[in-house]
Amino acid sequence: MEGPQQIASTKMFGGYNKRYKFQSRALGCETTFTIFFPPAASEKKVPIIYWLSGLTCTDENVFIKSGVQRPAADQGIAIIGMDTSPRGLNVEGESDSWDFGVGAGFYLNATQGKWKNWQMYDYVTKELPELLKANFSELDTSRASIFGHSMGGHGALTLYLKNPGAYKSASAFAPISNPSAVPWGKKAFSNYLGDDKSAWEAYDATCLVKNYQGPKSVEILIDQGEADGFLKEQLQPENFKKAAEAAGVPVNLRIQSGYDHSYYFISTFIEDHVMHHAKALHS
Amino acid sequence: MEGPQQIASTKMFGGYNKRYKFQSRALGCETTFTIFFPPAASEKKVPIIYWLSGLTCTDENVFIKSGVQRPAADQGIAIIGMDTSPRGLNVEGESDSWDFGVGAGFYLNATQGKWKNWQMYDYVTKELPELLKANFSELDTSRASIFGHSMGGHGALTLYLKNPGAYKSASAFAPISNPSAVPWGKKAFSNYLGDDKSAWEAYDATCLVKNYQGPKSVEILIDQGEADGFLKEQLQPENFKKAAEAAGVPVNLRIQSGYDHSYYFISTFIEDHVMHHAKALHS
Repeated sequence: MEGPQQIASTKMFGGYNKRYKFQSRALGCETTFTIFFPPAASEKKVPIIYWLSGLTCTDENVFIKSGVQRPAADQGIAIIGMDTSPRGLNVEGESDSWDFGVGAGFYLNATQGKWKNWQMYDYVTKELPELLKANFSELDTSRASIFGHSMGGHGALTLYLKNPGAYKSASAFAPISNPSAVPWGKKAFSNYLGDDKSAWEAYDATCLVKNYQGPKSVEILIDQGEADGFLKEQLQPENFKKAAEAAGVPVNLRIQSGYDHSYYFISTFIEDHVMHHAKALHS
Repeated sequence: MEGPQQIASTKMFGGYNKRYKFQSRALGCETTFTIFFPPAASEKKVPIIYWLSGLTCTDENVFIKSGVQRPAADQGIAIIGMDTSPRGLNVEGESDSWDFGVGAGFYLNATQGKWKNWQMYDYVTKELPELLKANFSELDTSRASIFGHSMGGHGALTLYLKNPGAYKSASAFAPISNPSAVPWGKKAFSNYLGDDKSAWEAYDATCLVKNYQGPKSVEILIDQGEADGFLKEQLQPENFKKAAEAAGVPVNLRIQSGYDHSYYFISTFIEDHVMHHAKALHS
């Protein structure tokens, strides 16, 4: 595996935002990712939190808009952000809509014909951790947590539930909590996975949590804006909460009055999420 | 004067980012501005800090990228951000370069022919404060401070020095400290103000501070990234510091090792600046 090439470095809160590109095996294309290294990374190995972004985002959005670097610097934790799909493959129709194709990988492994490169699940759970471990001695990839927003909030939940023990903790902002039941998810799953609903269940957090057999000691934190325009039609966090409760998986779903779906909402509560993960990563 | 029309509202840190548009007399066009109202504004009048942005920015950049809302919410201070020039006037050549014309008003009153609408000085020092006072009872416009970045950092210094007592305190990130002596400033001043150098001195902070006769009890805070690619050719904060020292105006110029000219640099130190102003505004 060829190592990543650094394409940008900017100092912030005593640490560095560093952006890299490399040729991904899983995705079959060049892709970019960004790491925020906290100041502590210059002295010792630091734990990491993977951030999974929402529809239309690249690896950069969370680093530009969320302010996550301030609490991450304070807590001595690195933040890893990756792109939300393959890019530049020129698959027919890949950019026809903003909620499917490019920028909309849904953190799954597609099985349907022309979307064969949409292997975001393998990329995030296997290739990227291996690449980080092989190339960044500052990072302790054995201490990892995961969080994200919207499509990426759902990605964080599914990757956590499908890989018991791989992540110390999970949290989400406004996750698409039950994609099999909503328009965004139905469009993505039917195109990427075909019509067999059992294939959908393997990537639906509300289905997955029902059969989750991993550690249940760490609560899953979910923040959801009460004024989020996508709440009723697309997100449905209550479905996930009910299924988790029935399965004995602790979930703290906080409905935040007056907040919408934007990075302004994320910025407001990102410190709470970093602290949530810090507790699990530093224990 | 017709009142401003709200065009967006988003909750953040318990307060609200609200964006407005109105027909500006000073600029002769419709323009936008944004106010972050801290949570305290729902209970009492709050002081304000004007933020003046740099080249190419609109009123939105600082609210999206700097994280200023967190300390402003904590301190109970409103942040006012405005556009950086008139827009939509279709003046010949107004968008030919990124460092002149649209997005590059330099917070002065232009005197030269086709740039007659570039009256950013009057807009920021007169029209906007009057509009805020008339339309927002939550704001105590008599308690105001001013800060900004690059072109806007220089704007903050000049508006503070030209209006003794109007602003309780001033600070700047990477200001263009002596525009008469650098390429960005020479291009802007010669086009907006003509060739008479005495007209330039009336908008050059390093010239203005030499003759400043206002209050000298409050230190001016300046942060400058040591790795800022514009430092040597365009910014020259040492010129301002030397002139201020000779005039007995206290300046705290902090050279920040490894930081560049970006919003990552601003984000890192914005809390320090809000606290600097809070001290002056709450005393």
